[in-house]
Amino acid sequence: MQLSGVFAPLPTPFDEDDRLDLDRLKGAYERFASGPLTGFVVLGSNGEAALMDDEESDRAIEAARAVIPHGRPFIVGTGRESTRAAISATRRAADLGADAVLVRTPGFFKSQMTADVFVRHYTAVADASPVPVLLYNFTAVTGVNLPVAAVGRLATHPNIAGMKESGGDVAQLADLVATTPASFQVLAGSASTTYASLCVGVTGAILALAAVVPDACVRLYTLTRQSRHDEARALQQELVPLARLLSGYGVAGLKAALRIAGVDAGEPRRPLLPVSEEGIAQLRQAVGRLQVTA
Amino acid sequence: MQLSGVFAPLPTPFDEDDRLDLDRLKGAYERFASGPLTGFVVLGSNGEAALMDDEESDRAIEAARAVIPHGRPFIVGTGRESTRAAISATRRAADLGADAVLVRTPGFFKSQMTADVFVRHYTAVADASPVPVLLYNFTAVTGVNLPVAAVGRLATHPNIAGMKESGGDVAQLADLVATTPASFQVLAGSASTTYASLCVGVTGAILALAAVVPDACVRLYTLTRQSRHDEARALQQELVPLARLLSGYGVAGLKAALRIAGVDAGEPRRPLLPVSEEGIAQLRQAVGRLQVTA
Amino acid sequence: MQLSGVFAPLPTPFDEDDRLDLDRLKGAYERFASGPLTGFVVLGSNGEAALMDDEESDRAIEAARAVIPHGRPFIVGTGRESTRAAISATRRAADLGADAVLVRTPGFFKSQMTADVFVRHYTAVADASPVPVLLYNFTAVTGVNLPVAAVGRLATHPNIAGMKESGGDVAQLADLVATTPASFQVLAGSASTTYASLCVGVTGAILALAAVVPDACVRLYTLTRQSRHDEARALQQELVPLARLLSGYGVAGLKAALRIAGVDAGEPRRPLLPVSEEGIAQLRQAVGRLQVTA
Amino acid sequence: MQLSGVFAPLPTPFDEDDRLDLDRLKGAYERFASGPLTGFVVLGSNGEAALMDDEESDRAIEAARAVIPHGRPFIVGTGRESTRAAISATRRAADLGADAVLVRTPGFFKSQMTADVFVRHYTAVADASPVPVLLYNFTAVTGVNLPVAAVGRLATHPNIAGMKESGGDVAQLADLVATTPASFQVLAGSASTTYASLCVGVTGAILALAAVVPDACVRLYTLTRQSRHDEARALQQELVPLARLLSGYGVAGLKAALRIAGVDAGEPRRPLLPVSEEGIAQLRQAVGRLQVTA
Repeated sequence: MQLSGVFAPLPTPFDEDDRLDLDRLKGAYERFASGPLTGFVVLGSNGEAALMDDEESDRAIEAARAVIPHGRPFIVGTGRESTRAAISATRRAADLGADAVLVRTPGFFKSQMTADVFVRHYTAVADASPVPVLLYNFTAVTGVNLPVAAVGRLATHPNIAGMKESGGDVAQLADLVATTPASFQVLAGSASTTYASLCVGVTGAILALAAVVPDACVRLYTLTRQSRHDEARALQQELVPLARLLSGYGVAGLKAALRIAGVDAGEPRRPLLPVSEEGIAQLRQAVGRLQVTA
Repeated sequence: MQLSGVFAPLPTPFDEDDRLDLDRLKGAYERFASGPLTGFVVLGSNGEAALMDDEESDRAIEAARAVIPHGRPFIVGTGRESTRAAISATRRAADLGADAVLVRTPGFFKSQMTADVFVRHYTAVADASPVPVLLYNFTAVTGVNLPVAAVGRLATHPNIAGMKESGGDVAQLADLVATTPASFQVLAGSASTTYASLCVGVTGAILALAAVVPDACVRLYTLTRQSRHDEARALQQELVPLARLLSGYGVAGLKAALRIAGVDAGEPRRPLLPVSEEGIAQLRQAVGRLQVTA
Repeated sequence: MQLSGVFAPLPTPFDEDDRLDLDRLKGAYERFASGPLTGFVVLGSNGEAALMDDEESDRAIEAARAVIPHGRPFIVGTGRESTRAAISATRRAADLGADAVLVRTPGFFKSQMTADVFVRHYTAVADASPVPVLLYNFTAVTGVNLPVAAVGRLATHPNIAGMKESGGDVAQLADLVATTPASFQVLAGSASTTYASLCVGVTGAILALAAVVPDACVRLYTLTRQSRHDEARALQQELVPLARLLSGYGVAGLKAALRIAGVDAGEPRRPLLPVSEEGIAQLRQAVGRLQVTA
Repeated sequence: MQLSGVFAPLPTPFDEDDRLDLDRLKGAYERFASGPLTGFVVLGSNGEAALMDDEESDRAIEAARAVIPHGRPFIVGTGRESTRAAISATRRAADLGADAVLVRTPGFFKSQMTADVFVRHYTAVADASPVPVLLYNFTAVTGVNLPVAAVGRLATHPNIAGMKESGGDVAQLADLVATTPASFQVLAGSASTTYASLCVGVTGAILALAAVVPDACVRLYTLTRQSRHDEARALQQELVPLARLLSGYGVAGLKAALRIAGVDAGEPRRPLLPVSEEGIAQLRQAVGRLQVTA
């Protein structure tokens, strides 16, 4: 499975009573599917998977699968704290049509999450998974770091295809690229350092920013691939303000920015709160500037 | 509901295939119930609630309720990431006989967890809960801190009875005591600072250590209440080595220490790994020393 | 040398042109000397020693020695980054009349500051010092932590009399007390946790707060020594707001609070800036409340 | 003053009795001067300036100036905690022939180091300096971060020519480049991310690694400038192991690596300890590999 390019994590719409809103989901996902992105991740961190139960997750996958065209990678987040639950979620996602699964590290018992624990966990999941597995390191959310050496050990597993590294530590990304075989695909997750990440050898990126301004993100990728470094660097810097706002406001910011960009993905589920008026004004300005640019 | 005294978080036994083991649970909980502790917490962090699904949780509560005698507080952990799921878990726990619920802060979306978010979340849960609610701040695990000011706002809710603060920051505990009405009961969760916590005014403690050496922990509480400060201080210091080992080895350490103390609570669920031979030797020594002392 | 009681770190006055102001120093120190404190520290962190050169330091010690009455411990801060400079500063301070020296850990090369490095550094200083040496751990400023085990090794040196631990981690203080012989005197440095620190066995405290409200700090110490725990706990809690402001505003806050209390110690040396008007108003309120109390 | 290229921070030799060793200094610096580097920094962090007094510093500058050829930037570290001392050190360095000064942020009073404090401090130093001033942000050592916005304000000062940013946060480097005029020269200080830093627009780098393997570092710079990105990326990755060892072992590691490379710069000054035998073996292997490569 080729993972070169730009992917977006898709938000999960809820209605005014905090219930999964499949109609809104279909409407929004059709918009995403009509754009230029390489592929999509549903039920990732930005998909509020942490706020949904298994039954809701299954319905969301099913609805998304009906809209996302085959031929573009359809990746489903199936990370869970227990190995058992991660395997179960992975199998269900594969049954429901996932092309691959993105499995966030467990992180609740932070001090116990050694390299060995990670290797056993991912090996068990990959052994059991009917579809390729992507590792997923998101230290800002989990509070743990998947060590480069553990990735190196896992990268030779025939059913582990790559990973998403959400942190902006470019040295760690370079290390991941250098420590793994060429067939292992490292995807960046930080929109403020995407250009630098591509420089050090990642094959692509999964960016909330790409859900909001897909054309600009694809252009950044293409410019870098074409070695048009000055243009890429300049575009990256134009993307930074919106990237920072999305990072700062989180899921609520992504949903607000999408509304500004014309996509209705609802509001975040409680306890998350919608973005303040001030935040919306900042987002409107940042999105507006990039649309003029594009 | 009176929460003065020493409580233990009870571990959840699993069998060799990682399945909930209710027979072992009953055997272990009968041992706990025959001891001197004031009350019990099931499905807390040390109960591996984060590794269990809702159906397993319900069965564990039911089995525990059948063993824990009425008249001693039977507290159930019902923290979830979404407000909706926390309310649902709370209602089910109350239906199954919980005397109170201990609701860990959400923490997945760390940067969004403002004081306002916490106040709304806990207010919604307390409004919906049939039984008293205890707040639960465990920064080392969640990566977020429930601010003292937010606790101050929540402490006047008629259905919020108190809180567990797992951190060892004695100044924060003193602040919590000073900022809340006398009816709001602050429970300490750090076994290395229990004596100092009692000095600054907490009403009791919930300690994994108390599952392993209940007599010593109750004695520490009693000595302090009787103003026998020199003896309390000395006993506290004797407890520190085992407290540190339990803190360092986590759930696996608790289960290994219990086995040393004669209680079979099985091994932790994957991805958690059992304690190494070296760790067991350290635990054996530390438990042995305290049994001689007692 | 007995170090039981309450000590204050004395600020170093500068004039409007940032020059050492010995007249102001004498005036201020006479005020301190007329109060109830057990002893004094000059050229500590709050004495802005880090902003002074060796020649200024010597003149400040000399002027202070002329004012501080013999019979009350006169302690001089002589911590330096190199062992050589720390020894030299220690010898000069002893020549100028210091009763003891307080030697802050080096911390510039943070990652190299192992337990071994600290043990060698302090052993060399103590071997060379004509007067007793106090270790000084101030992690918030140095970014390094002097490990309890290193203190345990150093505590048996005949010329190391004790230490100041500025952190508020009460478990670490209890550990220090438990790990060192009774003759080794542990002094607390955190005003918000002084009462809890005394509970776990420290012999006294060195507090910027004590420069501003010496009577209240001495009372806190006395109440605890007399086992009047409820009164001590209540007084501690009254002291917290001013303690927090002094901690938050640093040296500039100490100098502003002293002016409010009637002592002219000038303004901090650049790059430090004076406290804002808003900060002064907060300090005035907090000092005022405690003076009414006292 | 042009600062495009690769610079090395030069170590300061001491003899067996911890005294400044000017003979060794001359011998070592002649070796450095005979190499391909763009310029040199003396009395930087790796020059152990923090362990030297003013008189020693002056003698070291004088001796270095006599060896380093004019025409290649000769930069002297003159950061001090007080504004007054930083100005004095800067003037003396200029008198002794410095082409520019590198002024590390003050950082002792961490919590007081606001953007305003930094702007006033650097403005005062730059106003007083006879030679161009370079800002210097080294968070790992100082514990404070010079905010990008403060750099933006300072970058327009006619006597502030650029900065060294020692951190490996490539997003912050990109931000610094984007926030400052083209005439303001940003130099990277992290050898593991030099290639990525050059990608995002820094003009050069000051690297301890460049003192040990100058040819390889100059080649990395040249390859990137020539847009030979694949070769640059590969070379960067070859440099990472030695870069990590130097970062991990600090000054002692640099001096040991230099000895392996044939340059005698002595041992670090106490309290720093020499590298262990094991560390020397690791360094020998890493240096050897790069010499074969080159």
